[in-house]
Amino acid sequence: MSNLNPNQPILTEPGVYKTVDALISPIDQLNALSKIEAAKLLDSSQSGLYKLFRSCSLAVLNTGNDLDDGKELLERYKDFDISIVQQERGIKLAVKNAPANAFVDDKMIRGISEHLFTVLRDVIYTNDEIKGNPKFNLNSSEGITDAVFHMLRNANLLQPGLDPNLVVCWGGHSINRVEYEYTKEVGYQLGLRSLDICTGCGPGAMKGPMKGATIGHAKQRINNGRYIGITEPGIIAAEAPNPIVNQLAIMPDIEKRLEAFVRLGHGIIVFPGGAGTTEEILYILGILLHPDNKEIPFPLVFTGPESSADYFAHIDSFIGNTLGAEAQSHYKIIVNDSEAVAREMREGIKKVREFRKQSDDAYYFNWQLRISPDLQQPFIPTHENMRNLELHKNQPVNQLAANLRRAFSGIVAGNVKEEGICAIEEFGHFELHGDPEIMHPIDELLASFARDNRMKLPGREYVPCYKVIK
Amino acid sequence: MSNLNPNQPILTEPGVYKTVDALISPIDQLNALSKIEAAKLLDSSQSGLYKLFRSCSLAVLNTGNDLDDGKELLERYKDFDISIVQQERGIKLAVKNAPANAFVDDKMIRGISEHLFTVLRDVIYTNDEIKGNPKFNLNSSEGITDAVFHMLRNANLLQPGLDPNLVVCWGGHSINRVEYEYTKEVGYQLGLRSLDICTGCGPGAMKGPMKGATIGHAKQRINNGRYIGITEPGIIAAEAPNPIVNQLAIMPDIEKRLEAFVRLGHGIIVFPGGAGTTEEILYILGILLHPDNKEIPFPLVFTGPESSADYFAHIDSFIGNTLGAEAQSHYKIIVNDSEAVAREMREGIKKVREFRKQSDDAYYFNWQLRISPDLQQPFIPTHENMRNLELHKNQPVNQLAANLRRAFSGIVAGNVKEEGICAIEEFGHFELHGDPEIMHPIDELLASFARDNRMKLPGREYVPCYKVIK
Amino acid sequence: MSNLNPNQPILTEPGVYKTVDALISPIDQLNALSKIEAAKLLDSSQSGLYKLFRSCSLAVLNTGNDLDDGKELLERYKDFDISIVQQERGIKLAVKNAPANAFVDDKMIRGISEHLFTVLRDVIYTNDEIKGNPKFNLNSSEGITDAVFHMLRNANLLQPGLDPNLVVCWGGHSINRVEYEYTKEVGYQLGLRSLDICTGCGPGAMKGPMKGATIGHAKQRINNGRYIGITEPGIIAAEAPNPIVNQLAIMPDIEKRLEAFVRLGHGIIVFPGGAGTTEEILYILGILLHPDNKEIPFPLVFTGPESSADYFAHIDSFIGNTLGAEAQSHYKIIVNDSEAVAREMREGIKKVREFRKQSDDAYYFNWQLRISPDLQQPFIPTHENMRNLELHKNQPVNQLAANLRRAFSGIVAGNVKEEGICAIEEFGHFELHGDPEIMHPIDELLASFARDNRMKLPGREYVPCYKVIK
Amino acid sequence: MSNLNPNQPILTEPGVYKTVDALISPIDQLNALSKIEAAKLLDSSQSGLYKLFRSCSLAVLNTGNDLDDGKELLERYKDFDISIVQQERGIKLAVKNAPANAFVDDKMIRGISEHLFTVLRDVIYTNDEIKGNPKFNLNSSEGITDAVFHMLRNANLLQPGLDPNLVVCWGGHSINRVEYEYTKEVGYQLGLRSLDICTGCGPGAMKGPMKGATIGHAKQRINNGRYIGITEPGIIAAEAPNPIVNQLAIMPDIEKRLEAFVRLGHGIIVFPGGAGTTEEILYILGILLHPDNKEIPFPLVFTGPESSADYFAHIDSFIGNTLGAEAQSHYKIIVNDSEAVAREMREGIKKVREFRKQSDDAYYFNWQLRISPDLQQPFIPTHENMRNLELHKNQPVNQLAANLRRAFSGIVAGNVKEEGICAIEEFGHFELHGDPEIMHPIDELLASFARDNRMKLPGREYVPCYKVIK
Repeated sequence: MSNLNPNQPILTEPGVYKTVDALISPIDQLNALSKIEAAKLLDSSQSGLYKLFRSCSLAVLNTGNDLDDGKELLERYKDFDISIVQQERGIKLAVKNAPANAFVDDKMIRGISEHLFTVLRDVIYTNDEIKGNPKFNLNSSEGITDAVFHMLRNANLLQPGLDPNLVVCWGGHSINRVEYEYTKEVGYQLGLRSLDICTGCGPGAMKGPMKGATIGHAKQRINNGRYIGITEPGIIAAEAPNPIVNQLAIMPDIEKRLEAFVRLGHGIIVFPGGAGTTEEILYILGILLHPDNKEIPFPLVFTGPESSADYFAHIDSFIGNTLGAEAQSHYKIIVNDSEAVAREMREGIKKVREFRKQSDDAYYFNWQLRISPDLQQPFIPTHENMRNLELHKNQPVNQLAANLRRAFSGIVAGNVKEEGICAIEEFGHFELHGDPEIMHPIDELLASFARDNRMKLPGREYVPCYKVIK
Repeated sequence: MSNLNPNQPILTEPGVYKTVDALISPIDQLNALSKIEAAKLLDSSQSGLYKLFRSCSLAVLNTGNDLDDGKELLERYKDFDISIVQQERGIKLAVKNAPANAFVDDKMIRGISEHLFTVLRDVIYTNDEIKGNPKFNLNSSEGITDAVFHMLRNANLLQPGLDPNLVVCWGGHSINRVEYEYTKEVGYQLGLRSLDICTGCGPGAMKGPMKGATIGHAKQRINNGRYIGITEPGIIAAEAPNPIVNQLAIMPDIEKRLEAFVRLGHGIIVFPGGAGTTEEILYILGILLHPDNKEIPFPLVFTGPESSADYFAHIDSFIGNTLGAEAQSHYKIIVNDSEAVAREMREGIKKVREFRKQSDDAYYFNWQLRISPDLQQPFIPTHENMRNLELHKNQPVNQLAANLRRAFSGIVAGNVKEEGICAIEEFGHFELHGDPEIMHPIDELLASFARDNRMKLPGREYVPCYKVIK
Repeated sequence: MSNLNPNQPILTEPGVYKTVDALISPIDQLNALSKIEAAKLLDSSQSGLYKLFRSCSLAVLNTGNDLDDGKELLERYKDFDISIVQQERGIKLAVKNAPANAFVDDKMIRGISEHLFTVLRDVIYTNDEIKGNPKFNLNSSEGITDAVFHMLRNANLLQPGLDPNLVVCWGGHSINRVEYEYTKEVGYQLGLRSLDICTGCGPGAMKGPMKGATIGHAKQRINNGRYIGITEPGIIAAEAPNPIVNQLAIMPDIEKRLEAFVRLGHGIIVFPGGAGTTEEILYILGILLHPDNKEIPFPLVFTGPESSADYFAHIDSFIGNTLGAEAQSHYKIIVNDSEAVAREMREGIKKVREFRKQSDDAYYFNWQLRISPDLQQPFIPTHENMRNLELHKNQPVNQLAANLRRAFSGIVAGNVKEEGICAIEEFGHFELHGDPEIMHPIDELLASFARDNRMKLPGREYVPCYKVIK
Repeated sequence: MSNLNPNQPILTEPGVYKTVDALISPIDQLNALSKIEAAKLLDSSQSGLYKLFRSCSLAVLNTGNDLDDGKELLERYKDFDISIVQQERGIKLAVKNAPANAFVDDKMIRGISEHLFTVLRDVIYTNDEIKGNPKFNLNSSEGITDAVFHMLRNANLLQPGLDPNLVVCWGGHSINRVEYEYTKEVGYQLGLRSLDICTGCGPGAMKGPMKGATIGHAKQRINNGRYIGITEPGIIAAEAPNPIVNQLAIMPDIEKRLEAFVRLGHGIIVFPGGAGTTEEILYILGILLHPDNKEIPFPLVFTGPESSADYFAHIDSFIGNTLGAEAQSHYKIIVNDSEAVAREMREGIKKVREFRKQSDDAYYFNWQLRISPDLQQPFIPTHENMRNLELHKNQPVNQLAANLRRAFSGIVAGNVKEEGICAIEEFGHFELHGDPEIMHPIDELLASFARDNRMKLPGREYVPCYKVIK
């Protein structure tokens, strides 16, 4: 058990969680609001958005807690309430019955209060800016990219002056101790090489690299290291941002979150994970396999400790069997060598820098990467949509990757997202159709995940949410 | 003649002005534009806005030049051209045949290039944001204030962390040497007392206080002093921002510019001037005389050197005769005592600070001040509008002030603005109607201005643009 | 095993340690040396000081390695060489056959190179300044304090602007995993409360609090946290500074190092340890028991996890039996409650702040604390000096504490310091005389330490270096 | 008369100067003094140094005042007193009956209080460090350079990170308005080109370039411009540092001050002046004519407005007649073209940078320049020393330059320094001997200075202090 995690829920008596009431002042960003903007926020917080705002806020306050079930979290803190308070000088947030672990001696931890205002900004304010604004056309590929750009800029994540140094780390939130320690080692080696970290913010493979990099940066006297977390409302409860995250963005949906990762990052490391990680792998392969992206350098490494060698062998063979050798050429598997991983990233990012320099592209946003609409349009994992997925080889390989991505996206929803869990409870398992040469590897991979306990947090029984109809 | 003004136009031969071509990179602000935003800018710059963009840019480049006639300026640099160049990494500005005095060894002075990008931001980008955006209701008083707030925030002029210390300085751009030196002295004394300066940016009373404050700040080791210039497209050619101005905003029209001054500043000093300065005095009196603003502290000082004592006596008696003693109670006249002026401001601003603190109002924006719509709605000085002004005492005194303000606004237009000059050329003098007890003081005041050469820059003959119809 | 410690020695083949040659540039401090100063350094590095300079440098380079035996370290890197290279622009350090673990991809870790120049500064330059300078009278109490002040100021550790927030953490370098994790927890809670850390720099209780505080500071967005290490040449090999240490001072001897701790720190936490920790406890008690220091607030807490409750019971009873109840009143024992420890420190330091404010004393240096000469004069643990120690109750209690301190100091030397180890090898055990009511508790305490493996690093057999002659 | 100079002495009644009492806190530097250091300062301030400390302090407080006679200044503020007050937390300065013009609303101007503590540092503390310290051998050339280096480093003037950009400006403190305005123009052009300024601090040619550069820097958005003043106790009363000076060093004597200029600066501009300026010209020519310095680039420009063309013609012909054509080849005369001067400096400094880079010499201190002892040893202008000067061509040209330098040094002393004035009052005129072909040009030059009013401040009659004995 991590000893630096006193953010565990505090019980006043069995089943009763300790809570705190507080009034929180904004830090910088939202300070200068006009009267009309403040009034609109007050309105919004009474509207339909309020439910979303409340659940994301609760997730942020519950950080450090290993609970990965949003539904259970909401039940645990039933009386939690958050409201916007308007004062002449600006706005404040009033929280009631908030988890006590977000506070030190009744003062909210500064990192957490920053995240709370990020929720306000991204869930209410920015959302409103984008959805209510005719200048964003969310039906076109270009329009979606523009919206992603706008949200990241508004979150101060686009910084023109910096050299490329951002490594995106993907992997499971529910990995074992050995794997977790390895992610810290890799983060440490990245930090020693002045690389910054971006993850989906949450426990496991998303926390480890940041903690490691913090130490690496400290040893290299880097005190402006970036620990970027990119999340979305459906996942934030299960993967609450660790307070180390010092730049946070809450994107409106999975697809924009994934696009944010690849536009922002200069390379990607994939640690062991489960269905969610597979979804991410399929997403990036779907992009890199697009014919237009052939010349664009993008370092991609799969890595884990010795004990996860089998895991990556499964992934590799799954990719080989479904997407083929070209797909396999886009990544490198490195087992149990954190230094080699960090060196690979540093070298790969050097090439990214040269390429962008030559093509006069921005360092802070990967404009050139072509992302096809089937990877951008939100996929709603209804039972019908899942059933209708095209899972066969009779299509360009990047399209197949996109469809496989959707399949795994649905499985993640059924596992950890409130809506998905409810749908499964109501309508039974998702059904997946397709060519046997696709379906068989999927089934095999998912079976291996279940066997390895990669589908849920340890200590709680895994119940599969899908059925493969061959 | 100031020796620190090598920005005088450089002649290659009689009548031919030296020019330079250059490609200018943006500084910070506009660096991270999305592709769509950049494309829109490119479009805009081809549209109707282009003429405005070009003339404001030329004014900025021509800074330091004492020419106060926008029309003549445009003729002098007929071949001047500015265009937006899109590159993957961002946008740049290409200038052709630009006045050579904006450059040092063929590199544009950094302060001037900042101003050029401010023109781009405020004339094209922000304008578009506000005019094309349904969320701003420019017909309501609250909506106008909201737009002013939005523009000032976008120009980074609203800084939540600072104590009130901003002194607005008004006065003529065409004052004599003794008066100019006095404005420097006052600025110096303000700077020594850690006060920052905001003016309409231009020569004369708008440049002097900034230069003085620069030296005062240097002696007090203040190296983040703010020298804020607020201008508008119609006046920028005549009153181009001096490069000392380190924060610039170009408001869309006179009324929003005036509102920006009073919302932003914590006190106002009025130096000698002409019709434009009288307009400003009537504007602030129109606000302070509003019954809702009775309790709001607002330090207001009229000051000049010994030689301008008569001038302020005229102004004071004009105000007494038209608006009465209550209006006179809102300001203090201090003759030839720069230290007393600075102390008065510092003490007055202390009271402003206490008041805002108690009423929990922002320091960076004066939300509480009520500005009535007749001071907010743009006044177009057509011959008809001028003729129809209500200039009599049969109305609340703050309304009378507002109407007088409009009369003087029209006179300024007829004097220095391109459109106004053209209208006068076409239709003859403006005609002003009204009660003799109002019209007589107006006539007298304007006559005294003409007598004192306060209507145009020295060295060029003044031709009145109005006729008082008693 | 800590996974963030890749600084383990790298073996190229069994018994052969991988090394690197490099030329290191100074960071800031020693950049602007005059030609004469540089020449003097070159001279010094050839002189008798060179041996000391070389061994301290090697210790710094060997950081992170758990080896706590200076002699063995020197043997392991027999071919290590360091020299000062003079260039017109400044000086550089040339290292040959340096431990490879100090480098990342052949570039020295910045934190380590900073430490290397600290060695140069403190061992050669400052030493020379103090020893060669008639203005320091090292025979008087005031002169010693002045020298300590001078060295700390030269190391940039005296920062006038800061509020008191520095917690000194003492404890063993050879503690078990549970104890180590607990020191991290305490550090984390201190960091969350904006407190900075000062330790003796080395592994165990000296590293844990810094690592914990790093995370606490990150969560509170404190990016200028101070992690101060204070060491001395005799101990640095065994307790090499972790690179997290971002301010380092190498004091000339144990006594000046101890004085530096109490003059600099605003409170002290003692974690479990062995003889060295007991020495530190006796030192601070020797001071706090001085009649002149009666009124001076000084928070002092002994703490450890549940499993170390017995340990502190032994210490407490040893103090009660030898120094009595008054001594016991100066500290508080808190078992297994990291938050309570942090709160206690924060509250205690508040009182320190008030006291210094009222008495107009500096925050950055505790001038008022009276330290008697018997705690300041270096104690050389020869066999004779050890034999002659006055260990009886027939003396003021603070003097007895000072003498007990010396006894334990000798035992530490015999355990881990090169010279001490050699002396024991040559002349056999130290002999300690004294009253049975003193000697018995000593014997008992040391026996309990040996029993608990608190005298040496785990995994290597402990051989006692003393004999109690009752 | 400059309007930004309200530092004129304030008279409460005729002949009675307004004064203020105050307690001044140090800014940074001297904050962390040890008890012993503070005690020593207290001692020193009672000792013989006190007189020097008091007169330099008074000079600093009297800044901006055009009085250039130290003696008269001391008489004017007879009751002025300054003392060091020791408090537990540090030291403060108590001033009594200090000139009121150093205060704004009874608070000392920050720039002036910084200068006051600089006097403390340089006159008492550093002086003591150097004179009392056996490690400085002030009899050797190398030892003197080492002391100069030490003083400049202690004054924070040696900054390793910066590119060469420091222009030393020499010239008279008593120049006319046209010349003064020209020095501002040159400073402005230097500032526009990112060059910093170093002068002897005082009025005239020493203030103008700084004021101009301040505006140039502001326009280029440089807010860390350096305005370095280097003075010495004998001249500070006559040439008090303007508060714009943001880095000040008071060197112990004229020769170390001159060495500081040439070691620190990357190029020199000479404006019109009198005997003092001629001394400076002879000093730098004495160095550049040394055979060892042949290859070292050192940009040197003499410049002034149109009206000073004759002045430089005199200087040039004096140099030609006494030192010859080689000496003339070391400088360039530019009349009335501030831009050309600034461009010349920028280009020359580029070469300096390349040269230092190639020869691996520091940017912040010109180690390579050889300065012979006859330019380093203090010259005391007694009547005897003046009489014995070797002023003939029968010596190497650089030695002749050094001896001519001494002659002019004596003349400056007789004109403006307290001691010199007293000596002349007591013993009559200095007598100068020498070859006619040397003496004639001297006489001619000095006669032209007297004719042009270049020997004293305007408005006060000039009485020559020397007699040429042909």
